[in-house]
Amino acid sequence: MKGTVGELGEFGLIRELTSRLTTTPAVRVGPGDDAAVVAAPDRRVVASTDILLENRHFRRDWSTAYDVGRKAAAQNLADIAAMGAVPTALLLGLVVPAELPASWPSELMDGLRDECQVAGAAVVGGDVVRGDTITVAITALGDLRNHEPVTRAGAQPGDVVAVTGWLGWSAAGYAVLSRGFRSPRAFVEAHRRPEPPYHAGPAAAGLGATAMCDVSDGLIADLGHIAEASKVRIDIKSGKVDVPSQMNDIGQAVGVDPLQWVLTGGEDHAIVATFPPDVKLPARWKVIGEVLNPSALPQVTVDGAPWTSKGGWDHFGDDPATGGGQAGTGGSGGLGGFGGEIES
Amino acid sequence: MKGTVGELGEFGLIRELTSRLTTTPAVRVGPGDDAAVVAAPDRRVVASTDILLENRHFRRDWSTAYDVGRKAAAQNLADIAAMGAVPTALLLGLVVPAELPASWPSELMDGLRDECQVAGAAVVGGDVVRGDTITVAITALGDLRNHEPVTRAGAQPGDVVAVTGWLGWSAAGYAVLSRGFRSPRAFVEAHRRPEPPYHAGPAAAGLGATAMCDVSDGLIADLGHIAEASKVRIDIKSGKVDVPSQMNDIGQAVGVDPLQWVLTGGEDHAIVATFPPDVKLPARWKVIGEVLNPSALPQVTVDGAPWTSKGGWDHFGDDPATGGGQAGTGGSGGLGGFGGEIES
Repeated sequence: MKGTVGELGEFGLIRELTSRLTTTPAVRVGPGDDAAVVAAPDRRVVASTDILLENRHFRRDWSTAYDVGRKAAAQNLADIAAMGAVPTALLLGLVVPAELPASWPSELMDGLRDECQVAGAAVVGGDVVRGDTITVAITALGDLRNHEPVTRAGAQPGDVVAVTGWLGWSAAGYAVLSRGFRSPRAFVEAHRRPEPPYHAGPAAAGLGATAMCDVSDGLIADLGHIAEASKVRIDIKSGKVDVPSQMNDIGQAVGVDPLQWVLTGGEDHAIVATFPPDVKLPARWKVIGEVLNPSALPQVTVDGAPWTSKGGWDHFGDDPATGGGQAGTGGSGGLGGFGGEIES
Repeated sequence: MKGTVGELGEFGLIRELTSRLTTTPAVRVGPGDDAAVVAAPDRRVVASTDILLENRHFRRDWSTAYDVGRKAAAQNLADIAAMGAVPTALLLGLVVPAELPASWPSELMDGLRDECQVAGAAVVGGDVVRGDTITVAITALGDLRNHEPVTRAGAQPGDVVAVTGWLGWSAAGYAVLSRGFRSPRAFVEAHRRPEPPYHAGPAAAGLGATAMCDVSDGLIADLGHIAEASKVRIDIKSGKVDVPSQMNDIGQAVGVDPLQWVLTGGEDHAIVATFPPDVKLPARWKVIGEVLNPSALPQVTVDGAPWTSKGGWDHFGDDPATGGGQAGTGGSGGLGGFGGEIES
């Protein structure tokens, strides 16, 4: 892909983007018509939308177009999984400046496609327009496979709180990048390209999860969404929360308690859920707390007390400094989402 | 709604926007969770996405936020109908500057909601972020109700070409507005707020339509999409195409042959389809041409000859001057769509 988006032209760019796509048996009508048609065997479809802006949700000097595509797809597909559904399809609305190298949208599409493949889904359609700011609007669809959707509202006192996936890795990577470093690579990579445990969402639904969401804003913030919707209190046991040893090293280097990354860092898109206390969880789930009756305490506590370090996202701040992702990526920095989580 | 988006704040704006929404029985999980859940009784879901930018697809001095909402919803819901499906749901990705009056997104949402109600659908979710350029990313969903999707690819030589809805009204309204006038009101209103014949899409599917699309780019351009996908030629009989008498008056006033608006004006979101020749069409459908074998002529002809006036959209032009909509609204001015029509 040489030249700019403007030089490639409308039809050239569309041809280029669609030529990169792969399909799945669920795609009944793919790109090229008024609309796509996707199988919804459950007779219900799960849908979530997100909109990402350059320099607010991603930076071209920090992430390749491919990584932006992987991450943009991941954060939406994780929303589908966090309802207990299997992702099936993704649609892209894309704004690109005419002077943007044509390789950028092409590689973005490669990233979207590959992340969709990881989740079992496919890009089925989109719209591309010219504009000043690169804008990536994603809608993901999924199928519940006869599970009831697991909302945020079903947690019951006595339930256990369990999590699967990565926690704090993206925040640690952000801390590294924002200090001008490019390593340790594992955390920088985790920041650029989250790996949500897509399969765990439907599996949790099958195990009887009472409430669930993905961790896009940070563990405390996202458990706060569950606590609020379920009208309960949730207590996290800090001793149960794993802090990887490599994270301790970075924490020392940059002067941050890594537990803060784990408890408040967003964008790894781990999945957190509440389950009845007798649940038998698969090995990769970790019980980290319990659901309690509401009290005068905050809706989410750590070891029975309010978490005093800066927690979750400051949604009103322009540039989250610690504890989160880059320039408000994923669950942050904007004005928030609805029908998705706040800032899904 | 007083104050700006920034003053209202993230949670205030989301509360305000979601408080305006209505629901339908198809909405199983609405705004406020990781994702929405919508009924898909057909076991397939139809999905289309569009992205609209201020000053490219709409102008705040020409259209109210409410009208932008009506139009943005209409152009997406029409894509669903043009596959033969019944619209069920709409998701919104919205970029708003902090200094934007909070009434603007609120009234946009009213417009989206009301147009959804006309089509039988509901807004089920979204995402709102801060940014410099007002950007409205819409995804519409629909249900096929056991009809096979009607793509652009099924037209057969011998089929008739028929259209229902309005043609050229938006273009005439644009011509009026772009010359600084605000009347005749009927055309200006048609430009601000199209009225797609949503019911006609599923009805056409039931009548055995062989190919279908909505007229977003202009009749000749959109029939060109059908002709290309179906590998046929389509001939329009100009004598069969109605030119409303009021349109003649404006045409004279601004020095444009109104047939050009009817044949090349986009954004009214009429529905055009091909049918087997023995079809019995309801009263509001009008047969305007026929499907022929491919030939050396262009894929769409008018009375057997190429249409020589400027036709359809110049997708590469920055400001379409005639024959279309405002600043590239709806089906135009950007880089094009896929999996939707070109520039759906």
